Amino acid sequence: MKLVEKLESALSPDRVSENQTLLEQHSSDESYHTPNLPEIIVFPENTNEVSAVVKIAKEHDTTVVPYGFGSSLEGNVIPYDGGIVMDFSLMNKVLEIRENDFLVKVQPGVTRSQLDKELKKYGLFFSVDPGADATLGGMASTNASGTTAVRYGIMRDQVRDMEVVMADGSVIHTGNMAAKSSSGYNLNGIFVGSEGTLGCFTELTLKVYGIPENIMAARAEFSTVDDAVEAVISILQAGIPIARVELVDEQSIKQMNHFSDTDYNAVPTLFLEFHGNEAGLQQDVEFMKEIVKDMNCQEIEFESDTAARNRLWEARHNVAYAYIHGHPGKKQMVTDVCVPVSELAGAVKDARAAVNASGLEGGIVGHVGDGNYHILLMVDVDNPTDIEKANKVNERIVAYALERGGTCTGEHGVGVGKRKYQEKEHGNALAVMRKIKTALDPDGVLNPGKVV
Amino acid sequence: MKLVEKLESALSPDRVSENQTLLEQHSSDESYHTPNLPEIIVFPENTNEVSAVVKIAKEHDTTVVPYGFGSSLEGNVIPYDGGIVMDFSLMNKVLEIRENDFLVKVQPGVTRSQLDKELKKYGLFFSVDPGADATLGGMASTNASGTTAVRYGIMRDQVRDMEVVMADGSVIHTGNMAAKSSSGYNLNGIFVGSEGTLGCFTELTLKVYGIPENIMAARAEFSTVDDAVEAVISILQAGIPIARVELVDEQSIKQMNHFSDTDYNAVPTLFLEFHGNEAGLQQDVEFMKEIVKDMNCQEIEFESDTAARNRLWEARHNVAYAYIHGHPGKKQMVTDVCVPVSELAGAVKDARAAVNASGLEGGIVGHVGDGNYHILLMVDVDNPTDIEKANKVNERIVAYALERGGTCTGEHGVGVGKRKYQEKEHGNALAVMRKIKTALDPDGVLNPGKVV
Repeated sequence: MKLVEKLESALSPDRVSENQTLLEQHSSDESYHTPNLPEIIVFPENTNEVSAVVKIAKEHDTTVVPYGFGSSLEGNVIPYDGGIVMDFSLMNKVLEIRENDFLVKVQPGVTRSQLDKELKKYGLFFSVDPGADATLGGMASTNASGTTAVRYGIMRDQVRDMEVVMADGSVIHTGNMAAKSSSGYNLNGIFVGSEGTLGCFTELTLKVYGIPENIMAARAEFSTVDDAVEAVISILQAGIPIARVELVDEQSIKQMNHFSDTDYNAVPTLFLEFHGNEAGLQQDVEFMKEIVKDMNCQEIEFESDTAARNRLWEARHNVAYAYIHGHPGKKQMVTDVCVPVSELAGAVKDARAAVNASGLEGGIVGHVGDGNYHILLMVDVDNPTDIEKANKVNERIVAYALERGGTCTGEHGVGVGKRKYQEKEHGNALAVMRKIKTALDPDGVLNPGKVV
Repeated sequence: MKLVEKLESALSPDRVSENQTLLEQHSSDESYHTPNLPEIIVFPENTNEVSAVVKIAKEHDTTVVPYGFGSSLEGNVIPYDGGIVMDFSLMNKVLEIRENDFLVKVQPGVTRSQLDKELKKYGLFFSVDPGADATLGGMASTNASGTTAVRYGIMRDQVRDMEVVMADGSVIHTGNMAAKSSSGYNLNGIFVGSEGTLGCFTELTLKVYGIPENIMAARAEFSTVDDAVEAVISILQAGIPIARVELVDEQSIKQMNHFSDTDYNAVPTLFLEFHGNEAGLQQDVEFMKEIVKDMNCQEIEFESDTAARNRLWEARHNVAYAYIHGHPGKKQMVTDVCVPVSELAGAVKDARAAVNASGLEGGIVGHVGDGNYHILLMVDVDNPTDIEKANKVNERIVAYALERGGTCTGEHGVGVGKRKYQEKEHGNALAVMRKIKTALDPDGVLNPGKVV
């Protein structure tokens, strides 16, 4: 039997496709990386089907790339070996909400907005919020984070258990429903962030949180990026449990004003949020006001009203789209590094110098509480000079981060874009990672050419 | 050359020993598990020496068991294959405190009290507090936790990077100093909790916290364990950020009163602690008081004074020693399971029934905010009937936990005591763990017979 026939008989003909439009849709992600067509798209409905597809792929000496929403930023889901793309959009059910345990069990194709809509009914929320409305499977795959990691942690911190289909088609659970465990090796940790190279996630049990009763958002304007970053360090050192703290640079505020119809002053700005009980929150906010004043804050504006807060965070989340909208015909190269917080002011300053030197349009936004920041560069992907300039900026900020104990990616993952830095960042540890990959996927069936 | 000669020339003769007393000291841990003598003890002073010892062990087809303070509770460090025990007590320096990054770099032989003494000078503390004054290397090895995990997380959450000597003598770093990373596979997670079976830790970079400005401790008495556990669930659901919440049962309060010279009522009791700013803490405490009253709390006593708080927590930490002291000639079998919080009341009730049915003296104490609890059973290790009774209790509480989505150990690790439950708990995942072990230590040099 031909590969496609076998897949059709294992799933059903209407969930196996070689349609050109579908192939094209699954040939790229949201990055600037060169697309590549897969041969076949499959849409499994359950774990058995996922297992069957992986086994068939192995028999036919072809490959499987798991695919969520396609919002990855480093080419993580591009099928460079062709083969099968496994689209999880039909496995999109919220299976169980255990409110007393603050746990939820979902299929990998559930998107974060879909999950939050369900959780709201129980007064709960899921904390991890990357820019895109990604799927939970995809977010676990790249170890995504977002604006709330400084308070609630990253994707890896939320995963209690995953059902995973391995390269040989066997099915495992990586953890359990207890809050902690010292039993066996920690498989949760290694599968989260493995970008589909070690197994296909078919079910996730995730930690959720009670919606805080009191939330205060703020926007604080500074005259320099240095002052803004120093203010964040001081707030953290004061022990104020900040829930979100985002830096948006001058150029990005301008794009934001155009796209989101805001009229903020185009200066380095912090977007902040605090959660807590009423009295505690008030005291935190008063203390924070003093700290930012000491750091030459020019203007601070608070928003406790839900609608106003949502507008503020929507504007922040839309910065990347604002750049795209403002530069028709160009693509966005987003790069992401993370440094120890004490190195952040220097890193952001150097990054701005790198962008200016490149001559490209670009902005800096970042989750400064974690030392994680992004550069958004607008490039003409058909112009090799633009790509070269962008790559040079990328090289420079990664080198800066690695020299100071940082990492080449804080939340976007390795994909293909950050593969060239793996040796430099991990040294001998890369050989250990490769041994694990080889032990668990000896035939290289799963998302080949990525991460290691 | 003989093994001992090679080791002497690689280290120095005074740091390689076959002295009988030293061999005996390194033949056991604090558990009831049968001791076994190693052949040689080595005391490395640096990473190169650790690497040399591992290479020599491999050449001589013998084994290496890394050893910290020997306070493990499941036979984790007992050298059942004889071989070399690597004692890290000479690698006991705090190497660097990066206060702006809330990070500290230590050698593996540093104990937690030693670290906290250093950190205090900077207004910082290390959060993980197992009962014993364990080494940081040992704590990473078993993924230890303790009373503060409900707020600050477990050992795995604190590890940013480790230097590790692998089974082939190569040296790797498992992470970096950034607050988060999506680069490569998460080696931090898999090495923490690997109990010396995947590599020897030679340096650890750990997350630390600012000492909270306001701390309030409390002791709340209940007439039933059920009420106490229900009160904890209600406090968590109310979103009160509790820093510690410990359950001590009636029998254990009696032992505590004898040993620590306290005069608490012998009833199920919660020991609690709250951290926060002044106003927030006050509001949390008021809210908590209402909640525990609703749950039939009989008496609640607060301690904001440092000395009084320390007395309270010392009494709690000394419960295990109180039992040992109160039962001369007997050894303590401590077992540790963890269940989803919603299953905790049932689990503790069943555990008490199991202890009573066994006829052994024993108590239940637990980190109830995590669903993690311990049974302390006093046994005569030379009496097979006692051991059989204790094993039966162990079997029963592990089975109860596994049937309800829990784990056979929340914080003590697998060692040899929990090996028999690995198949049942992990199913197919155990094969994955074994593949990782084989890939990284093909000759079985490192702590053989443990975990997988």
